[in-house]
Amino acid sequence: MQTFFQYNWMVREQWYEWCGDISEEELLATRIGGVGSILKTLFHIVDVEWSWIQVLQGKPDFQEDFERYKTLQQVRELDAKFHTEVEPFVTAWHEGLEQRIFEDHLPDGRIVTDAWGEVMRHVIAHEIHHVGQLSVWAREIGKPPVSANLIGKGLINSLPGKA
Amino acid sequence: MQTFFQYNWMVREQWYEWCGDISEEELLATRIGGVGSILKTLFHIVDVEWSWIQVLQGKPDFQEDFERYKTLQQVRELDAKFHTEVEPFVTAWHEGLEQRIFEDHLPDGRIVTDAWGEVMRHVIAHEIHHVGQLSVWAREIGKPPVSANLIGKGLINSLPGKA
Repeated sequence: MQTFFQYNWMVREQWYEWCGDISEEELLATRIGGVGSILKTLFHIVDVEWSWIQVLQGKPDFQEDFERYKTLQQVRELDAKFHTEVEPFVTAWHEGLEQRIFEDHLPDGRIVTDAWGEVMRHVIAHEIHHVGQLSVWAREIGKPPVSANLIGKGLINSLPGKA
Repeated sequence: MQTFFQYNWMVREQWYEWCGDISEEELLATRIGGVGSILKTLFHIVDVEWSWIQVLQGKPDFQEDFERYKTLQQVRELDAKFHTEVEPFVTAWHEGLEQRIFEDHLPDGRIVTDAWGEVMRHVIAHEIHHVGQLSVWAREIGKPPVSANLIGKGLINSLPGKA
């Protein structure tokens, strides 16, 4: 589980760097699909990751308003702040939490349950999915997207000497 | 690991159904980003998943040519054929394989190594990333994309009575 989070955090950092070369106008431009702009997508990824990990722990969630985070710097600062809470939870993750139950109380009164292992994978897939959208918009702008490769990042130590 | 593959296979099936309502012209239309068309993306996902799992096992890989798979039916048939080889490998996956070493002999003569656990996660992330691209193109066509939610699919059994 940790490997995927590390991957997402590395790729996200690379997207922030990528955004550094893009005008604010392009970052905020309305685009087709997803949540509608490059910067709003990064904000959404950060918000959703933190929110799920908050609610799993029974901690208060609140919907951050994108209106307050309309610059790359503001999104990065929010991410850094949330990361101090997200990272310890991810690091402490273990097999024994996989089937723990999260009760989701929906606005319409229904209660649905998800295993914690599903919620964590949902968070992982959520980011990769949205980053796929960024890759299309990057090409529309005419700038090569960040690589989505998971291999080659040294995420798992293998010992070549043992091959 | 299995949970993510199950997720990808369910979502892929839903995209095939989604494609059933789209004209062949739209499925093959050249689009910005990714590998360039909706059907070619699905073909590419199927090809890459199978190819990695083949090479991990030291089995022959060959680059299928999209020219031979230009209908939804042909891609689905290729997927069904490959799935009979992919599924047993995924089902048999266990923790002990995580750090096994795969030696990748690159065309330029270099040899790079990846842990098997990295390769498997690369395959998973690869599909989710490309499906994110499909979701943008779906909106361009004006048809809502398949949901990327991992929760709510019953992928992990939790026992609500125990909550």
